[in-house]
Amino acid sequence: MSTVIVGTVAFDKIETPFGKTDKILGGAATFISLTASKFADDVHIISVVGGDFPEEYINLLTDRGIHTDGLQIKPEGKSFYWSGRYHTDMNTRDTLITELNVLADFDPILPVSCLTPEFVVLGNLTPSVQMRVLDQLTKRPKLIVMDTMNYWMDSAWDDLMKVIARVDVLMVNDSEARQLTGEYSLVKAAQKILTMGPKYLVIKKGEHGALLFHGESVFFAPALPLEEVFDPTGAGDTFAGGFIGHLASTGDISFGNMKNAIIYGSAMASFTVEKFGTEALLNLTKQDIYERVKLFVDLVQFDISLVD
Amino acid sequence: MSTVIVGTVAFDKIETPFGKTDKILGGAATFISLTASKFADDVHIISVVGGDFPEEYINLLTDRGIHTDGLQIKPEGKSFYWSGRYHTDMNTRDTLITELNVLADFDPILPVSCLTPEFVVLGNLTPSVQMRVLDQLTKRPKLIVMDTMNYWMDSAWDDLMKVIARVDVLMVNDSEARQLTGEYSLVKAAQKILTMGPKYLVIKKGEHGALLFHGESVFFAPALPLEEVFDPTGAGDTFAGGFIGHLASTGDISFGNMKNAIIYGSAMASFTVEKFGTEALLNLTKQDIYERVKLFVDLVQFDISLVD
Repeated sequence: MSTVIVGTVAFDKIETPFGKTDKILGGAATFISLTASKFADDVHIISVVGGDFPEEYINLLTDRGIHTDGLQIKPEGKSFYWSGRYHTDMNTRDTLITELNVLADFDPILPVSCLTPEFVVLGNLTPSVQMRVLDQLTKRPKLIVMDTMNYWMDSAWDDLMKVIARVDVLMVNDSEARQLTGEYSLVKAAQKILTMGPKYLVIKKGEHGALLFHGESVFFAPALPLEEVFDPTGAGDTFAGGFIGHLASTGDISFGNMKNAIIYGSAMASFTVEKFGTEALLNLTKQDIYERVKLFVDLVQFDISLVD
Repeated sequence: MSTVIVGTVAFDKIETPFGKTDKILGGAATFISLTASKFADDVHIISVVGGDFPEEYINLLTDRGIHTDGLQIKPEGKSFYWSGRYHTDMNTRDTLITELNVLADFDPILPVSCLTPEFVVLGNLTPSVQMRVLDQLTKRPKLIVMDTMNYWMDSAWDDLMKVIARVDVLMVNDSEARQLTGEYSLVKAAQKILTMGPKYLVIKKGEHGALLFHGESVFFAPALPLEEVFDPTGAGDTFAGGFIGHLASTGDISFGNMKNAIIYGSAMASFTVEKFGTEALLNLTKQDIYERVKLFVDLVQFDISLVD
């Protein structure tokens, strides 16, 4: 089953208390597709880069079976570039540089191979760009997952609402869920968001785990307690990649399987934060993932027998 | 099996964004024993109150089978009194009034019925008072659980270390674990604390759940996502009460059963925060507890089949 992933492909330059990087491979679509491709076949990336984007980075995607026919290359332009510095607690960061470059007037054009995907992930982007993607689809996908951020709530509210109304799963973090609804209680925020269109809501809480809401049901997955969070960049996108990758590889979008997808997403995110950028994702084996998921089982499983 | 609970019995006056109380029944030993008595028989409370403490509050304990032979009444003194105001996020509070009163020179005298308990909970108190209790025991209990707070780390470090060295389970919150060890990472903090004496460490993270560490193993239980946290006062003590109550009622202190005890503690704490003070605890039925625990099962249970 094919999966289309729309989002940024970028250069990141990162400083954490543990060190700093040069410009390295980053971007939401990068993390999502690299992660999803560990689980699912036929993953397509829709994005744009400039002439400065190294061929080795594109090879790094295609070597892992990711289709880049929807990755536009603008030879005269420069790739999106973000630089940030994390604080000691790793929960907050300062953006040092944001250069939109070719992203500024990105018009996503879906190649024929991407017009009828089963699964779509709208990574964090301008809502009107996310909408342009949905408008080109010639068949309703089985599942549309959307990420967004508070910036679009401040700057493009009406467009944002229109996209949210058309997706199946919204993924936001806790502060974004609060801003989107004006509710401090995440339970109340979830109730409101589930009336805006999405049938499923994922609230990411970083080191405090993630919640999945659907109707009256709630599922919670913790983040793995780690000795060190080395670099949180891309953790949320990795989470989304593991989530969609598991769903696409099984073809099962039941609530029960979405719980499993949340666990896979959390497990994958726990790898990403252990190294800079995409480094931890690149050479992961099936066995690594299996062992990490097993840690999650051990972390939350208990044995209270309840009989109705 | 008998359980001895040492801690404050007090008046609390609470303000939250939802309202305020007059002086109501509070104190660590109150919450712990009221909760433990939902599970376990033969619960004894060791504390001190003044002549101002209403007989109806004592009856409220004895009506629930809690033994108060170790509750000293100083007719000429006044009971410990705490007043606080919670901020909107409910995670922070200002202490408005602390009157130690009879607690200032509390000398815990264990009655004969309390000299050989199977289970002991040292509620948050001056470490030297906690030590006085341990010194009177004529037989090593099966399990000693200790709560403490950052105040004692600042003011009574040496005494605190001596008590910590003698207990089996230490319960602290995340900031206390960090202060106790100088480690920001809770995993590293846990590793250090487990060399200080306790074989088990519980780190309470409030609305973000609780972690249980033992050797190389970690277990995590979330807090129940609630529409409103009405009053967090006593949540941590209620958690401890559910934890010890389950262990004492089953007599099983294996790591597997401690996981279940963490779930019972979390379930009980989720009731306490729904009303002011001890109000939610007083009339809980077995059925209420059963249904709440079932919510926890549904909240975290997933079905990934892993075969080694």
